[in-house]
Amino acid sequence: MLDEGGVVRVAGAHDALGGVLAQESGFQAVWSSSLEVSAARCLPDASLLTMTEYLQAAANMQKALSVPVVADCDTGYGNAMNVAHMVHEYQAAGITAVSLEDKLFPKMNSFAAGGQTLLPAEEFAHKIETAKNSQQGDDFFVIARTEALISGQPVAEALDRCHRYADAGADAVLIHSKARTNSQILEFLAQWQGRRPVVVVPTTYPDWHVEDAARAGVSVVIYANQGLRATIASMRSAFRSIYQHGDSTALEDSIASVSDIFALQRLADWRKLEA
Amino acid sequence: MLDEGGVVRVAGAHDALGGVLAQESGFQAVWSSSLEVSAARCLPDASLLTMTEYLQAAANMQKALSVPVVADCDTGYGNAMNVAHMVHEYQAAGITAVSLEDKLFPKMNSFAAGGQTLLPAEEFAHKIETAKNSQQGDDFFVIARTEALISGQPVAEALDRCHRYADAGADAVLIHSKARTNSQILEFLAQWQGRRPVVVVPTTYPDWHVEDAARAGVSVVIYANQGLRATIASMRSAFRSIYQHGDSTALEDSIASVSDIFALQRLADWRKLEA
Amino acid sequence: MLDEGGVVRVAGAHDALGGVLAQESGFQAVWSSSLEVSAARCLPDASLLTMTEYLQAAANMQKALSVPVVADCDTGYGNAMNVAHMVHEYQAAGITAVSLEDKLFPKMNSFAAGGQTLLPAEEFAHKIETAKNSQQGDDFFVIARTEALISGQPVAEALDRCHRYADAGADAVLIHSKARTNSQILEFLAQWQGRRPVVVVPTTYPDWHVEDAARAGVSVVIYANQGLRATIASMRSAFRSIYQHGDSTALEDSIASVSDIFALQRLADWRKLEA
Amino acid sequence: MLDEGGVVRVAGAHDALGGVLAQESGFQAVWSSSLEVSAARCLPDASLLTMTEYLQAAANMQKALSVPVVADCDTGYGNAMNVAHMVHEYQAAGITAVSLEDKLFPKMNSFAAGGQTLLPAEEFAHKIETAKNSQQGDDFFVIARTEALISGQPVAEALDRCHRYADAGADAVLIHSKARTNSQILEFLAQWQGRRPVVVVPTTYPDWHVEDAARAGVSVVIYANQGLRATIASMRSAFRSIYQHGDSTALEDSIASVSDIFALQRLADWRKLEA
Repeated sequence: MLDEGGVVRVAGAHDALGGVLAQESGFQAVWSSSLEVSAARCLPDASLLTMTEYLQAAANMQKALSVPVVADCDTGYGNAMNVAHMVHEYQAAGITAVSLEDKLFPKMNSFAAGGQTLLPAEEFAHKIETAKNSQQGDDFFVIARTEALISGQPVAEALDRCHRYADAGADAVLIHSKARTNSQILEFLAQWQGRRPVVVVPTTYPDWHVEDAARAGVSVVIYANQGLRATIASMRSAFRSIYQHGDSTALEDSIASVSDIFALQRLADWRKLEA
Repeated sequence: MLDEGGVVRVAGAHDALGGVLAQESGFQAVWSSSLEVSAARCLPDASLLTMTEYLQAAANMQKALSVPVVADCDTGYGNAMNVAHMVHEYQAAGITAVSLEDKLFPKMNSFAAGGQTLLPAEEFAHKIETAKNSQQGDDFFVIARTEALISGQPVAEALDRCHRYADAGADAVLIHSKARTNSQILEFLAQWQGRRPVVVVPTTYPDWHVEDAARAGVSVVIYANQGLRATIASMRSAFRSIYQHGDSTALEDSIASVSDIFALQRLADWRKLEA
Repeated sequence: MLDEGGVVRVAGAHDALGGVLAQESGFQAVWSSSLEVSAARCLPDASLLTMTEYLQAAANMQKALSVPVVADCDTGYGNAMNVAHMVHEYQAAGITAVSLEDKLFPKMNSFAAGGQTLLPAEEFAHKIETAKNSQQGDDFFVIARTEALISGQPVAEALDRCHRYADAGADAVLIHSKARTNSQILEFLAQWQGRRPVVVVPTTYPDWHVEDAARAGVSVVIYANQGLRATIASMRSAFRSIYQHGDSTALEDSIASVSDIFALQRLADWRKLEA
Repeated sequence: MLDEGGVVRVAGAHDALGGVLAQESGFQAVWSSSLEVSAARCLPDASLLTMTEYLQAAANMQKALSVPVVADCDTGYGNAMNVAHMVHEYQAAGITAVSLEDKLFPKMNSFAAGGQTLLPAEEFAHKIETAKNSQQGDDFFVIARTEALISGQPVAEALDRCHRYADAGADAVLIHSKARTNSQILEFLAQWQGRRPVVVVPTTYPDWHVEDAARAGVSVVIYANQGLRATIASMRSAFRSIYQHGDSTALEDSIASVSDIFALQRLADWRKLEA
């Protein structure tokens, strides 16, 4: 997909339904977001859910999609042995792309204050190398995500880390930032030699147009959590409406119909199998 | 809850997040809906997902809630032995209320055309009796749901079945209808002797106000799928907006913030545990 | 494997450990046995465990093995729609061979008295056809198992059913029997035209030598539950010994060592990944 | 159980079947062993399997037993937040006793060479305190296991740690050793003030009779892995026999019968539920 040129747009999801709606809207891949998957459980995005639970969410998305799932795998769930096991398990479940980040396990969500300690670059490079050595066949893509900016380090540190991770075999690098503007990312891109595609996640700088990002050297843009945030707003509003009005009439025109649900479930296709 | 009088209002959900939003809005219980849980997987509501998967969804909701989950258990996943096993498993996972329906396994969603064959009433009564005999302790509630109207049978058949199910030990009866009005339900209520609380699901007759339902003899109203339908509409709209605009700026004011997510994850409370 | 000629020997297991021990002993495939998997849970082999649980067991075996797992899928967990879903799920989890049997769901273990009602042949043929139509790619093998003899029907009925299942696309047929001798099986084989490989399960006629079976026309022999039965005997004996003697000294010479466990876990290989 | 005096004997298992056989032999509790559960997957006991998988194994045992499962929870799967989550999840699944050990996550099996780094005592004490503060109700038992001897520290360090863990609220302490004799354990017991019950695991010193251990001050003895080791030996032998002999006749007298399996599945009881 990356070889065809152009920027790849990816939307975050926490279940197959979200993934299918993203694919339907044109997104070329789906980000199985740890923030979303943990939020769907009402638990912090802090390595509380297990690899089993994150994998299950990603695999259930992939089974419903024709575009690839990119699985947010946090720190790889432990050390290099855990990373190797992770690659075996994700491949066995049909996942073809994962992202690993260079923080300590257990990690804390990048947008939370504190708890953003980095793993030494050498150790993380070993994890990336282990991931690549552990894959079977060629069809597996490993994104090395640096949290250098998230942890308060300068752009130079992010660049140094991404070079090491590229040397270790990463198929792409993800430079994450929670700044209110994209200025640090632009600084990174200006100095990045293009040795690997660059991935960005414009959550806190939502006004960066995809074409501007592409011109600046970005290959992949992940809209990581907007689907969840839309869900929260709409579900909250719907429940309040029903509770306050005493019936659901007021909602009927603004929500999907039961037939819309059936269409997303591909019910008509399935029923052709009935004897 | 039912003993305190008044009508109990229940909202449908498919994950803990939906359950928490329902509870937050005032609902006194959460319906773990088979339609919603299967839709979250983009698979038909046709006994394709397994008891394991439905239970996992219900248990994950219950762990996040202080109000009870009422688990939609379809037909009980097989015969009376399956029902007994189901009760053991649901109780072991912390579920205190279930609903069973009197159709054949595998079942088809009630709003779909066809596939609505009823189990003989005697066999279903045996299932209800088995469920009640299988529970440990007193804190377990079994709703017997009749699909008589859904399958095209008259109100008399629904009444006869509900009487048998009450005799078999059901703690409540659920009379389901997909008519565009509540007239058959009102006919049922007029003839029901009040031997057990009556549960209704006003999906196709959304304009029945909860107080009118209460006056007509309803004890529990389940708004079974509106949360899912709101989710579909809003997520679809959000993804289209991002894809078409090329950035997510247009959404920012209408969707929840990352801080809202953190609040639903109760992140601040969790972080007090850090050393 | 079947194309190479010779008889394929398969051993039953309920977890990866059993599968690895079977492979190590020379077996060319591993039978993920419903009887074993349910016995490991101390629950009847009566469609109580769900497809999710049986699939998890089979997938965990396959991940540890280089030989294929043949998954005992009972009746296919429902109707033809369930079978299609089953094939999708099993393939997504890396399983390449399944066996379906022509009894009603929920099924009862074949060695138990009663509860052995057959599905009409036409309906089961539709399931087999659906399974084959649902597979992706060529690398998926569907065994049609007839329970005709188990349910008390004559050999002619078994033959008729197996012909229909072959017509429907089955890759092999399994003729099951709980007779104390192989005479009915021999009668079946004498009349079978060899249109598809024949699979047998000599649990109740354990003295049928594999070479004799091969000469009679059998292509695959499944030793379905001996590993479990050995486990029960040895574990029972070990626990009794410890409890009665007050220490475990008496066992030490007859049980595997901790180093043997490490070897089966391939610990030394894994530790090479440590940084 | 401990209040009644006498020593409590516990046997290790990796599935419900092993647990039931242990209970049947007289053991008063079952140890859900990480070594056994990971060995059943043919994966190292090195924090590769997730909490989800270990919990599932433990919960499946508990559902089949009337005696309590004591869940081997390794390091608690991360930091104090992970421990709190672990307690919530284990309690929700019906587990009433857990054991935590004072090594770093990811941990390496205690009998393996190397990889036995201890967590600072203060941090582990915080985990124990967090576990106790996280439990709901009184019916939950937390064992603090020190790996001081395993990591090569002297008995004094083990004592100091156990005192701190007792202060932090541990309900019992487990002093683990892989020495070929019980001498270090005896030294520990001689100096332990009896403030909490002491648990031992005589894997490498199997000749310590339970009554001698009791007299020395031990309250709980865990026979942690002998059931698995018996299983490996017998299953290996059974598979080899079948493969080498060409049939299973030679085994028939030494292995359990199919009826024995049915009895362990409690099939006759279950069938009373059939209509």
